[in-house]
Amino acid sequence: MTATLRLGIAGLGTVGVGVVKIVRKQAALLAQRTGRDITISAVSARNATKDRGINLSGYDWEADPVALAQRDDVDVFVELMGGTDGPAKDATEAALAAGKDVVTANKAMLAIHGRDLAEQAESAGRVIRFEAAVAGGIPVIKTVTEGLAANEITRVMGVMNGTCNYILTRMESAGLPYEKVFEEADDLGYLEADPTLDVGGIDAGHKLALLSAIGFGTVPDFDGIEIEGIERITIEDIRQAADMGYRIKLLGVAQLTGRGLEQRMQPCLVPASSPLGQLEGGTNMVVIEGDSVQQIVLRGPGAGEGPTASAVMADVCDLARGIRIPTFGQPVSTLRTAPSASSVLPAPYYLRMALVDKPGALAKIASILGASGISIDRMRQYGHSEPAAPVLIVTHRTTRAPLDEAIAAMQSTDVLAATPVALRIENL
Amino acid sequence: MTATLRLGIAGLGTVGVGVVKIVRKQAALLAQRTGRDITISAVSARNATKDRGINLSGYDWEADPVALAQRDDVDVFVELMGGTDGPAKDATEAALAAGKDVVTANKAMLAIHGRDLAEQAESAGRVIRFEAAVAGGIPVIKTVTEGLAANEITRVMGVMNGTCNYILTRMESAGLPYEKVFEEADDLGYLEADPTLDVGGIDAGHKLALLSAIGFGTVPDFDGIEIEGIERITIEDIRQAADMGYRIKLLGVAQLTGRGLEQRMQPCLVPASSPLGQLEGGTNMVVIEGDSVQQIVLRGPGAGEGPTASAVMADVCDLARGIRIPTFGQPVSTLRTAPSASSVLPAPYYLRMALVDKPGALAKIASILGASGISIDRMRQYGHSEPAAPVLIVTHRTTRAPLDEAIAAMQSTDVLAATPVALRIENL
Ligand SMILES: NC(=O)c1ccc[n+]([C@@H]2O[C@H](COP(=O)([O-])OP(=O)(O)OC[C@H]3O[C@@H](n4cnc5c(N)ncnc54)[C@H](OP(=O)(O)O)[C@@H]3O)[C@@H](O)[C@H]2O)c1
Ligand SMILES: NC(=O)c1ccc[n+]([C@@H]2O[C@H](COP(=O)([O-])OP(=O)(O)OC[C@H]3O[C@@H](n4cnc5c(N)ncnc54)[C@H](OP(=O)(O)O)[C@@H]3O)[C@@H](O)[C@H]2O)c1
Repeated sequence: MTATLRLGIAGLGTVGVGVVKIVRKQAALLAQRTGRDITISAVSARNATKDRGINLSGYDWEADPVALAQRDDVDVFVELMGGTDGPAKDATEAALAAGKDVVTANKAMLAIHGRDLAEQAESAGRVIRFEAAVAGGIPVIKTVTEGLAANEITRVMGVMNGTCNYILTRMESAGLPYEKVFEEADDLGYLEADPTLDVGGIDAGHKLALLSAIGFGTVPDFDGIEIEGIERITIEDIRQAADMGYRIKLLGVAQLTGRGLEQRMQPCLVPASSPLGQLEGGTNMVVIEGDSVQQIVLRGPGAGEGPTASAVMADVCDLARGIRIPTFGQPVSTLRTAPSASSVLPAPYYLRMALVDKPGALAKIASILGASGISIDRMRQYGHSEPAAPVLIVTHRTTRAPLDEAIAAMQSTDVLAATPVALRIENL
Repeated sequence: MTATLRLGIAGLGTVGVGVVKIVRKQAALLAQRTGRDITISAVSARNATKDRGINLSGYDWEADPVALAQRDDVDVFVELMGGTDGPAKDATEAALAAGKDVVTANKAMLAIHGRDLAEQAESAGRVIRFEAAVAGGIPVIKTVTEGLAANEITRVMGVMNGTCNYILTRMESAGLPYEKVFEEADDLGYLEADPTLDVGGIDAGHKLALLSAIGFGTVPDFDGIEIEGIERITIEDIRQAADMGYRIKLLGVAQLTGRGLEQRMQPCLVPASSPLGQLEGGTNMVVIEGDSVQQIVLRGPGAGEGPTASAVMADVCDLARGIRIPTFGQPVSTLRTAPSASSVLPAPYYLRMALVDKPGALAKIASILGASGISIDRMRQYGHSEPAAPVLIVTHRTTRAPLDEAIAAMQSTDVLAATPVALRIENL
């Protein structure tokens, strides 16, 4: 250990600027707590002349993040550019090859390339830390890998995309349709450059893949996640859910059973009075269940300059203190590859359909459900509005396969005016 | 680092037995995660013949915990006997002097002797870890000292005594008086041998002293805490609070301001719809606020065999992994001694009084409050029941000093039938 821990920061957007601010504002505190000075040697971003509201003149500028990652005066490479591949991955690999530890907030890169990168880190005797990549300011990676290290983790759940939660809660509180709130969120700068990453559930899926990996000791398996976005949720769904005592959340659930690893990231109905149901706006919540600890719930800001930078700097402090947990909490060679076992656990489902106005339409739907072994708990039909009548069904517990089979059968009839929406009901 | 980390466990009660169970049940998992085998060399308790429901024959028995702490085949001394002084402290000191790290769940010992013990640990080049001592299974020590290490902590709050929370929520749900529920709790084994530790707020106060110390970098200052127990809370108080949209919780609040360190552990009225207000039974909740992260809320089981042992073993895993944070998160020499500045922050108060049935009694109370500069927001008087009429007052924001002054003045009149109850209203 040298007395000073020297950072190279690539990416000076929301998070990067937040990190620079903490390094400056809390220099004394960081030194007191970690026993070392933490400094910045050099920074990198695309645009060298942009005013970022902070004075960068004390740091060398590197146009190329790879060159930054390789500098002799950098001990820790801090990757805050984003992107699954491209400069983020190139620079991360260069940093590891040059013997530097890496701190990143990049869930996309780690969810896809996590295993390979962890392997590279391990053979170089380095670590990759990524506290900020999951649930922003909430120290959930540390909680799972260290705070609950003595537990066999049995389930992790979370609302981990603030933008989706903002959209869903705002639709409910303002009584606005999805499209309107989506526009609002865009105007507020809440959406990623590619908004399907948020509303399509991809971003939250990346986070779930990382959470599963550290929780269950499995290789991150983003492709094994059953992902559904919130794009098809209507204000009517939200109202119906509320009527039944539920709220709709984009909920991630991961569970390792004898059958394999179940990972879902989907809009679900959760009890309105549950902690997850009560979550408002951009706040995130993660629930971790372990054999000894029972259940731990963590709540906090899932994004934003300060909270995300707090998590990045927690990783930096760990490194300054000599804390070097393997990237996914245990050596890469010990990570298991579990078969994907999505949707084998039964649950009641909420089904919304638009039926064409034909006699016998509803009977046809009911008999198709019955043929797939799905029984109806509650049903509600809305008069005979034109051109199609909305029908809402709550099923008894079923698994996804017969439900999908029934939906396919419905779609091959002539009674549906649109593709049905099916939402799992999670009675947490 | 030897390949194996060898424990000596003193205390085989609720927590000790839980720890032995985890070491056995999760041996493979612990080795995978920490890279080392974790074993038990020897154990100690008072009664060598008691059936503890686990097989202890594989471990050496030491009648004397001090001898256990000094054994050559012990790397980490695990203190789970409890008690501020006596064998717990003697054995902890012996362990440090013999060059062993210490893991303990003992908040009483650390709240009182924490500074001295941390100093002894530091000069021996050892650490004392105490995750289980605050909020049981919730990894709050790790969250504050590591997960939020880059934050200036601005406030910590918590409901951290499950027994008190059980009593208060049970009084409300069952409509039972304090005495009845206290008996129930006793029958259920929820109470400490000396129950005033629980219901008097002492146990929760010990936890708050530790939380303040790590949050603010101050010397643990148990004596500086304004402590009030829940013994005087009546079912009527709970009902009145509910009427106004509040619930009564034994809430700890610590805050470091320019004036000094404010630490309170008192029954308070908190909004019924807030996360703290909704906390049921033995569950604990800790709220941590920092300059960058804003607010993090942690919820989980505050006691019990499994959860507490989970926290003890998290500390053991840290040590196995070579994580060695100073006892209070930073070197003892850098801990500040802040003046105690309790109750300087104003809040509305709930006041319950019993007035003797005399004309002008209420006017006298109102004028005393007015003379102390306290204005009344709401008041409610209950007919003229015999021998005294209950009167409830909600004040506008005031600090504690004028309130105490007013209460003293009231008591020197002849209109009070009993000492008034004053509860702070925390609009979180
Ligand atoms: N924002 C959040 O609240 C949040 C929360 C958790 C995790 N994260 C993650 O944190 C990372 C950064 O997010 P952000 O919100 O800070 O992004 P951002 O505001 O878009 O900033 C990205 C930064 O990277 C720089 N950059 C992009 N390509 C580059 C290249 N080829 N070479 C050098 N610099 C390059 C950009 O430079 P210019 O400024 O010159 O364009 C910009 O400074 C992402 O992985 C994101 O998923 C963000
Ligand atoms: N219980 C919880 O949920 C919880 C939660 C958080 C923290 N804690 C803390 O954890 C510690 C242990 O609590 P616990 O609930 O496990 O207590 P407990 O059930 O009363 O067990 C105490 C153990 O210490 C042993 N002991 C007492 N004096 C001793 C002596 N002089 N020499 C050797 N052994 C001695 C006892 O021996 P015998 O069995 O032979 O009498 C017993 O095994 C305390 O500091 C407590 O505050 C407990």
